Amino acid sequence: MPDAVLARASEHLFLRDASGASALERPFTGDAFREIVAHAQSCLRQLLNLPDNYRILFLAGGAMHQFSIVPLNLLGNSRVAAYADSGYWAKRAIGEAQRYAEVAVVARHAGDSPLAAPDLENWSFPVGSAYCHITPNETVEGIAYPDLPDCGDVPLIADCTSCFLAAPLDIARFGLVYASAQKNIGPAGLTVVIVREDLLERSAPLVPAPFSYRLQAEQQSCVNTPPTLAIHLAALVFDWLLESGGIAAMSVANRQKAGLLYAAIDGSGGFYHAPVAREHRSTTNARFHLANEALTELFISEAALHGLSNLRGHRHIGGIRASLYNAMPEAGVIALVDFMADFAQRHR
Amino acid sequence: MPDAVLARASEHLFLRDASGASALERPFTGDAFREIVAHAQSCLRQLLNLPDNYRILFLAGGAMHQFSIVPLNLLGNSRVAAYADSGYWAKRAIGEAQRYAEVAVVARHAGDSPLAAPDLENWSFPVGSAYCHITPNETVEGIAYPDLPDCGDVPLIADCTSCFLAAPLDIARFGLVYASAQKNIGPAGLTVVIVREDLLERSAPLVPAPFSYRLQAEQQSCVNTPPTLAIHLAALVFDWLLESGGIAAMSVANRQKAGLLYAAIDGSGGFYHAPVAREHRSTTNARFHLANEALTELFISEAALHGLSNLRGHRHIGGIRASLYNAMPEAGVIALVDFMADFAQRHR
Repeated sequence: MPDAVLARASEHLFLRDASGASALERPFTGDAFREIVAHAQSCLRQLLNLPDNYRILFLAGGAMHQFSIVPLNLLGNSRVAAYADSGYWAKRAIGEAQRYAEVAVVARHAGDSPLAAPDLENWSFPVGSAYCHITPNETVEGIAYPDLPDCGDVPLIADCTSCFLAAPLDIARFGLVYASAQKNIGPAGLTVVIVREDLLERSAPLVPAPFSYRLQAEQQSCVNTPPTLAIHLAALVFDWLLESGGIAAMSVANRQKAGLLYAAIDGSGGFYHAPVAREHRSTTNARFHLANEALTELFISEAALHGLSNLRGHRHIGGIRASLYNAMPEAGVIALVDFMADFAQRHR
Repeated sequence: MPDAVLARASEHLFLRDASGASALERPFTGDAFREIVAHAQSCLRQLLNLPDNYRILFLAGGAMHQFSIVPLNLLGNSRVAAYADSGYWAKRAIGEAQRYAEVAVVARHAGDSPLAAPDLENWSFPVGSAYCHITPNETVEGIAYPDLPDCGDVPLIADCTSCFLAAPLDIARFGLVYASAQKNIGPAGLTVVIVREDLLERSAPLVPAPFSYRLQAEQQSCVNTPPTLAIHLAALVFDWLLESGGIAAMSVANRQKAGLLYAAIDGSGGFYHAPVAREHRSTTNARFHLANEALTELFISEAALHGLSNLRGHRHIGGIRASLYNAMPEAGVIALVDFMADFAQRHR
């Protein structure tokens, strides 16, 4: 979280107002909270330059909840949905969708060295595909699509959890995007869903009320008690983003941060190496390995002593992963790059 | 929320620790957060004197999410579930369950004057009933069951959202209880589920992973990103409850608060009247009407000027509702009772 947001949160969220209630305690049916939802929606609409025919929902839970809720809401009369398998999180989304849908995997990542996102050419959709689901940024593998597939009339759905608000997003190319809050939006326990209005009609009667995109859109995300505090914090983050130059400024800063780090990896003379093809490297989750894997644990523990934490790669993959979300300042990346150079010099 | 919890939250939750992360930002897979979950579970276990064969889950969303998740997890091989219709929230639970189950309504509230919870005698369960669901305290009507039904071998499931931690609860009489956090636990967006271990086996393969009680129990409520901040706040509330004498002390205080208020209503010479039969009156949501209904709006607006807010009855019912959750101090009730006497004197 940005320092400015933490400071505002700690000043405001737990203080009682004239009515005796803190932000934490206000009823979600009351005007004060409804204004916060409206403000958060308005800020996000402005940040994304959102077309009028898209609705913003603030739902409880994380992205994995949407792995099930997307098919329940979007299959409509179809049983078939197309999914691109770009890595760990795409596979998790596929696994959940297979409980309800006939999943057609229309593209796969290459899976060998160098790692890459699925080829964007020639995706072939089974007749009646209700939608096509992609994972634009794979946090575990550190892979990002360089562009979007052409899905024709098949609505494109994306789990944007790890890249949301980090770079410009042309929403008009999507039917629906969702993003769990704990990366660039706010605290864990909230997911933002942005959905094209015409798709709301597909929500099946069997969908539980709080999981129905249609009902949540009709009731301003208040079908039942929403995660009020998380929405309040998200609104503070959106304010901060608008004050900080919006997504364009974040995107410049994020490319700069990622550029510094990948340059340090590529310029290390092989001491560090990034396994992902250059044009498919994530600017959000920069992943690398030490040529001498036996030094990985030492690297992580020494880095922690320098205040550089959470660098361990995902347990399924190992190595190092540096996550460069919006709130990570460039100074943090410079500190990491300096440490990497020093570590390499001492252990070369 | 209790003042002490708000103060601690504002001191601690948004401050960065030595690692540079605030409580809001720590990864849910890390030791620091796992310790908070373990602490919250341990405190709650102690508060409820929980038998060893019950598991505690901290899940995203509100009680209405459980309206769907309970049948998905507990129907097992059956299609039939028994529900008692005690009022507004019981009906909402029934409505969601009917999407998946054949719902047998085994008891109903009388529905006329005086209002009462369903009669506890002679509940008859269809063969193969997977469970029996009750709503021990109806927040809208202000009705509470005076005791629990005898369900024999049919597991008793309860939506305890509005009465959880307010009075002793003999968990051993239940198969599962759930409670949305925003009443006596913490912030909106979290629901506590307490489930008897043997029922976990019933979770069907079709249940989405984050909604599977079995998977969430196996993975310490961390199948996917949990509402970390809400769990942190809940832990602070549990600490406060333990320091404040636990549920026994809350129960004494709550009965005292409700007693003051109902005495003021019953002693008003008919100016105010409570529509619920005495032995079925909720100690949590005290509901009353003014004999002259035309004065209701004036009562609510004058009360607000005295700092007495959120007194409007539910929109489906009207009248006045005073909610006396654990954090409401007796002084708040005394202020209300004083205002009621003054108002009655001026408008009699």
